[in-house]
Parts: sequence; structure tokens; C-alpha cells
Amino acid sequence: MTDIRREHAEALDAADPVAGLRSRFVVENDIVYVDGNSLGRLPHAVRDRVSTTVEEWGSRLVAGWADWIELPRQVGDRLAGAVLGARAGEVVVTDSVTVNLYKLASAALDARSDRRTVVIDADDFPTDRYVVEGLAQRRGLDLGVMADAPLEGHHPDDVASMCAVLQPALVVLSHVNYRTGALLDMPAITEAVHEHGALMLWDLSHSVGVVPIDLRRSGADLAVGCTYKYLNAGPGAPAFLYVRSELQESLRSPIWGWFGQRGQFEMGPSYEPEAGVARFLAGTPPIAGVASVDAALGPIEEAGIDEIWAKSQALTQFVVDLHDTWLAPLGCELGTPRDPERRGSHVSVRHPDAWQLCRALIEIEGVVPDFRGPDSIRLGLSPLYTRFVDAWNAVDRLRRLVETGEYRAVAAAPRRVT
Amino acid sequence: MTDIRREHAEALDAADPVAGLRSRFVVENDIVYVDGNSLGRLPHAVRDRVSTTVEEWGSRLVAGWADWIELPRQVGDRLAGAVLGARAGEVVVTDSVTVNLYKLASAALDARSDRRTVVIDADDFPTDRYVVEGLAQRRGLDLGVMADAPLEGHHPDDVASMCAVLQPALVVLSHVNYRTGALLDMPAITEAVHEHGALMLWDLSHSVGVVPIDLRRSGADLAVGCTYKYLNAGPGAPAFLYVRSELQESLRSPIWGWFGQRGQFEMGPSYEPEAGVARFLAGTPPIAGVASVDAALGPIEEAGIDEIWAKSQALTQFVVDLHDTWLAPLGCELGTPRDPERRGSHVSVRHPDAWQLCRALIEIEGVVPDFRGPDSIRLGLSPLYTRFVDAWNAVDRLRRLVETGEYRAVAAAPRRVT
Repeated sequence: MTDIRREHAEALDAADPVAGLRSRFVVENDIVYVDGNSLGRLPHAVRDRVSTTVEEWGSRLVAGWADWIELPRQVGDRLAGAVLGARAGEVVVTDSVTVNLYKLASAALDARSDRRTVVIDADDFPTDRYVVEGLAQRRGLDLGVMADAPLEGHHPDDVASMCAVLQPALVVLSHVNYRTGALLDMPAITEAVHEHGALMLWDLSHSVGVVPIDLRRSGADLAVGCTYKYLNAGPGAPAFLYVRSELQESLRSPIWGWFGQRGQFEMGPSYEPEAGVARFLAGTPPIAGVASVDAALGPIEEAGIDEIWAKSQALTQFVVDLHDTWLAPLGCELGTPRDPERRGSHVSVRHPDAWQLCRALIEIEGVVPDFRGPDSIRLGLSPLYTRFVDAWNAVDRLRRLVETGEYRAVAAAPRRVT
Repeated sequence: MTDIRREHAEALDAADPVAGLRSRFVVENDIVYVDGNSLGRLPHAVRDRVSTTVEEWGSRLVAGWADWIELPRQVGDRLAGAVLGARAGEVVVTDSVTVNLYKLASAALDARSDRRTVVIDADDFPTDRYVVEGLAQRRGLDLGVMADAPLEGHHPDDVASMCAVLQPALVVLSHVNYRTGALLDMPAITEAVHEHGALMLWDLSHSVGVVPIDLRRSGADLAVGCTYKYLNAGPGAPAFLYVRSELQESLRSPIWGWFGQRGQFEMGPSYEPEAGVARFLAGTPPIAGVASVDAALGPIEEAGIDEIWAKSQALTQFVVDLHDTWLAPLGCELGTPRDPERRGSHVSVRHPDAWQLCRALIEIEGVVPDFRGPDSIRLGLSPLYTRFVDAWNAVDRLRRLVETGEYRAVAAAPRRVT
């Protein structure tokens, strides 16, 4: 029988091999922070690195660029090895997820200009859908929108069927769904897409740093992802982009910027793309932000992605068990896959009053989840700093609110929730 | 007769009304820093603000977004009033100059889709030329390239002639030329462009924060600019973009991102652009960077742009006088307009061995200028922290190097110069 006592949570924490890494993060109060999916906590190493970078600017002035100029590629290489299963020279850190997705999707559509459709997921994160919608509209392409995914997310066979019918130029999907936490089968889906001659672009924002990713082995063509969730690089830290090495010479960014120019400082009369992935750089990169990504990788490398993933699965399973025992009888429903191999690092609990329950958790209970419409309370579990007792506390307090109905005292009007 | 004695420089510093603002910047050594045009010095207020922002992240976690979400518009409004002569609601701080230029130029070409040409300057900063070249190629448009500008830069009549012949959709020009420092006549050129039915996009990277700019009065349609030169917001700090309020509803960003979406957190199924200039936001903005721009504006507002500009003109005139007395007889040539009203805040000194002279200034003389090919030593003068004695020292040491020929000891091979 599943042990859901608080003492069991404490025992799991005591036996947790990565528990010590919580000390690498700033934890200033006793808030139960289970919003790991929107903004990770501040690593001490990032605080120090930002400060060092600002001091470098102050003392070295323009001479600092001798080192800064390489950072987007160097940190890309580090990301490639630590969490992406990519090679050196396949990843750069620059711009936002939105801008990177725009650059790569545009390049992919150019490379498959004989095809007239792009496939997206109706339930993908908004910016992904909007960017692709915009590109499709400009080029007069059709959108193939995958809808009605089961809770476990789209099955490779469904993607294959879609591709067989539509013969798309490109398929854009998120590795982990931001709402349900469904973790897609990256190798199988990529293979299905390739069998139908399309290119595959993965958004890794909701999986990178917590789910093992092997871009090379999965055969992925292109990928983007944010660095402020499980990578903990801070609000608006620059995103990354990946282009499979074999494809790099055949793809071209739509944004012809001087950081993507071959022989940047020759400042020649015409644009010629730089060799390799660096051609997808555009303008001057945000140096303190790129340095933050670099520093944030320290604790992740130290723990190792396999240990992080093992703890993620244990944490989400513990929350699922708590849900089944406490919340299901109270009218809640699990909004996340039950198979740990098909689940990212958050658990969604569905309830008709989810929005009010989220506000009450924050305002009354000192628990910070996030709300995802229409009816999900999302509990993000970031293995490097979320303890089993944190998970226990979060669900216990949610249970109390549902049981007592106290949450109804919170104003019902919906408001912005990030 | 012009007084070029060191004592005169000291007297000018003693009488300088903005001299006290130098103390707002980190000045850690006795380097003569005249590279103000590539990377401004670190303001103490920016160091503090970055640190505060990082601490906010650490303590407020995701709740910080309640305030951060408005920063790109708030800081845009502050920039608008302080240094751009724009209205609230016309400027946002986000992305890089390159990405912002891409967004605005693309939107402008959509709005003038009946026309087949874009006009650029052959001597504009590379990223500007490359971005427009890329947009033109994708759309099958012709590039009208303005070449052979006199030292004073393109005259409004020359722009008018070009527009009369080509009937372009859009003209893209830099307010101050990055090589010569020529300051274009923004109102007259904008008027000429409008007379021929085209839209006008100004790159203000080399003028903002030091030259008075009145975007509204000049009639400019669109503008972009960096924040790391005379605005001193740090390496790779986010850029700004301006869209004249009357045009906003008719223009649309090519990058349909969630920060430019109306009702961002409703996360609706289809993209609909936000009202106003915010529709040109794209992905999650770099919060520490936007906050840096905010803090960097403090010393500028305190001095006032008119005082800054008056000192800029006095500084560049002093360098021109030193050049004429000392350097011209040694074979140097002034590469910058003589009329202070047509000159930005740097002075270019031309010499066949400019590259070696720049290296020797840095390595032997402790003077940091920058080199601009093929033959210019660029002396950037940033009024908030450059003293008249700094200008005197820089030119004095350059004179010594040219006179003695000592600079020839420096390796001659060109290398990357940022």
C-alpha cells in the first residue's frame, strides 16, 4: 500500500541523493514554491556570476568583448552536453524562445518550400502557435492543427497519420505539454515525421533540465527552449536554439544580423551566413543573461540529469498518490498522465474552482502553484530544490482548502496569472 | 586663436556644469576611455539595480512578474520622454536592435506593399544593411543603395532625389554615421521621404543619449536604437523601438509572440495583436536588462539632454582643434564633419596606419579608442564622464605615437576589433 504519511516524505528526503543541492539556491522564506515551471529559483552561482559580469563591464569596459563574444556558443556547447544530448557546435544561447522559434521555423519552411502545410498542436503553448500561425499566413501555407490529444499527449501513430495525409513541410511540438505535463515520445514522433519527409522542431521549454533529452539520438532537426524554468537562469534569460549539424549549411535565418555574419568584424558589404549554428545569431547578445545560463548549469551538471529525472518521477508519483488518496474523493481529477515515463515534472490537479483554489493557496496557505485555464492547478516540482515534504505540504494544504471550502472567500474574478 | 593648452582643458573641466556626473560611473583606473560609442561605462545605479532585480527574483519568485510585466512599456515611456522626443505609448524596450529593425522594417514593407524598393545607405552599420538586404531578398524587392555621401553625410536633397526616382516603400538610415560621426538632418530628410510617399525608419544607436532627438516633431515613422553606447545600460542590454502612434494600428509585427498578443494571459487560440506599440513585443523580455536601461537613464535625466549635447559639441570641437594643430601637420586627416551641428559625439582621425595606431594607443598609451576600417581612429566622447583633459590626453598621446613612429612596433596583422 502506498505510504503517504508526512513521515514517509521526510524519509524520502533523508534518502534523496540530490537533497544537498537545495543549498545552492536562495531560499529566503518558508513559502512552498511549486511554480518551478514558470520561473525557477535563484541559484547562488547565478547571483555571483551576474555580479562578476557587471564588475567585468565596469573594469574591462569594451575589452570584455574579447571573451563575451564567444559566450553564446560556449554556453550553447555546455548546454548541448549537459542537458540536450547534442554536439558542440549545434546550440547557441541568444534571443527569446519566440524569436528563436521564428528563425528556425522560417528556415525550415524555406528548406521545404515545395510543401504547403505546417503541423502544430492545438494545445501547444500560445507563443508557439502564434509564431507558426504568423509564418503560415505570410507564406499562404495551411495550418494542420492536431487537436483532441488524450491526456498522455499525441501518440506517434497520430502524428504519423496527420503527416501521411497532409505531407507537411514542418511539425512543431512541445516535448512536455505546459498544461497536462504529458511527455511526448521524441524519437518515435521524430521518426514518424521524417518518414513523411517533413522536418521536426521541438520546443523543450517545459522539459529541459529535468527530463533526459537526446536530440542527436532522437534524430531531431531543430529545437528551441527557455532557460528560466528548470534551468533557473532568471526572468527573461536568453533562450537556446539547436540545429542538427548536418542541416546547418542548408538552412538560413530570416533575420540577417551582424552576429550571424561570416567575418563579423570585417563588416563587409553583403551578408553571408557564418558557418555552423552561429548563423542563427542575430544582434548583440545579452551578456549578463548568457552568463547566467552558464552559471545555472553548475548544480544541474553536479547532480546529473539522470538523478534529477529519477527524483522528478518520484516527486510526481508521490503527488499523484496524494491526489488519489486525498483529492480524488473530494471531486478533484488528475490532469496529468499516470505513467511516469510519459510525464514531465509537474502534476495538474483539475477542479472546477481551480482559479480560486490557486489564489487561496497563495494568499492563505503560502503555497505558490500556478493556474492554467480552464481548470488546472499546476504543481511544478523542480528536483534540485523541491523536497518531498514540500510536495506533501502543497497537497495537504490544497486538501484542507477543498475540504473546508475556505477558498470561496477569495475573490472570484479571474485576473492575470503568469 | 584657439587655446589648446592642457591648462585650458582643465579650465573647461572646472567650468563644466555636468562634470559632477562623472562620479555616477565606475571609474576604476586611469585608462583614457574614448570608446564611448561601443560600450558606455557602468553607472553605479545600474550595478545597484541589477543587484536589486536579482534579489527580487530570489525573494519574490514568480510574483515578481506582477511588476516586471510592465517594465518594457514603462522604461519605453521613460526613454520616450527623456531622450527621444516621443510620447508615452510609442516606445518599448525589448530584443536587440537587429531584431527590432527586422520587425519594424518588415511591418513597414507590408504597409507599402505596392512599392518595390527599399532605400539604405551603403555606409550604414552592417547589421542595418544586412537586415534590410534579407527582407528585400525574401520579398523580391530592389535595394536602392545610397553611396558616395560627402563627409557631412547625405543631404536631404540627395535623399529626395533618390526617392523621386525609386519611389521606395521605406528608407532606413542611421541618425549618426558610425564611422564618420556625420549627423543627418532628421526633420528635413523625413519630410523629403514623406513627400515621396515612403515610410522613414531611423536607427538612433549612435545618437541616442547624446544628441537631441525629437521623433514627434521630425515626423519620423519608425525608429530603433541600442542602449549600450551613450545610454550606458551594459553589454547586450535590450534595444528600444519606436512606432509613431498614428501608425500603430496599421502595422503588424512579423513575429507573432505572446508578449505582443492582446489579452496575453487568456492564451487564446489565435493571435490578435495587442493595442499600441506593445504589439511589437515578441517573447519574454530580459528583465534585468530592461531594468538596467531604466537605471541608466538617471544621470542622463539629471544632466538634461541639452547640457549633454552642449558639452558633446564642445568636446568634439576641442578634439578637432587639437587635430588641426597637432595631427594634420603629421599627415592625419579629419574624418568627421567640421560643423558641430552636423556632428555626433565622436571624432574620427584618419591615418593610413590607423589600425596599428589604435593598437599602440591601447597597449602603450593606456588610451582606448576604436578602429573603424579602413583607416579611422574613432574617439568617442561621452559627455557624462569624458573630461576635456581626457580628450587632451588622448590626442596628445596619439600625436606622440605618430611623431615618434613607436606605434610601428605593434604587430601589423589586422585582428578583430569590437
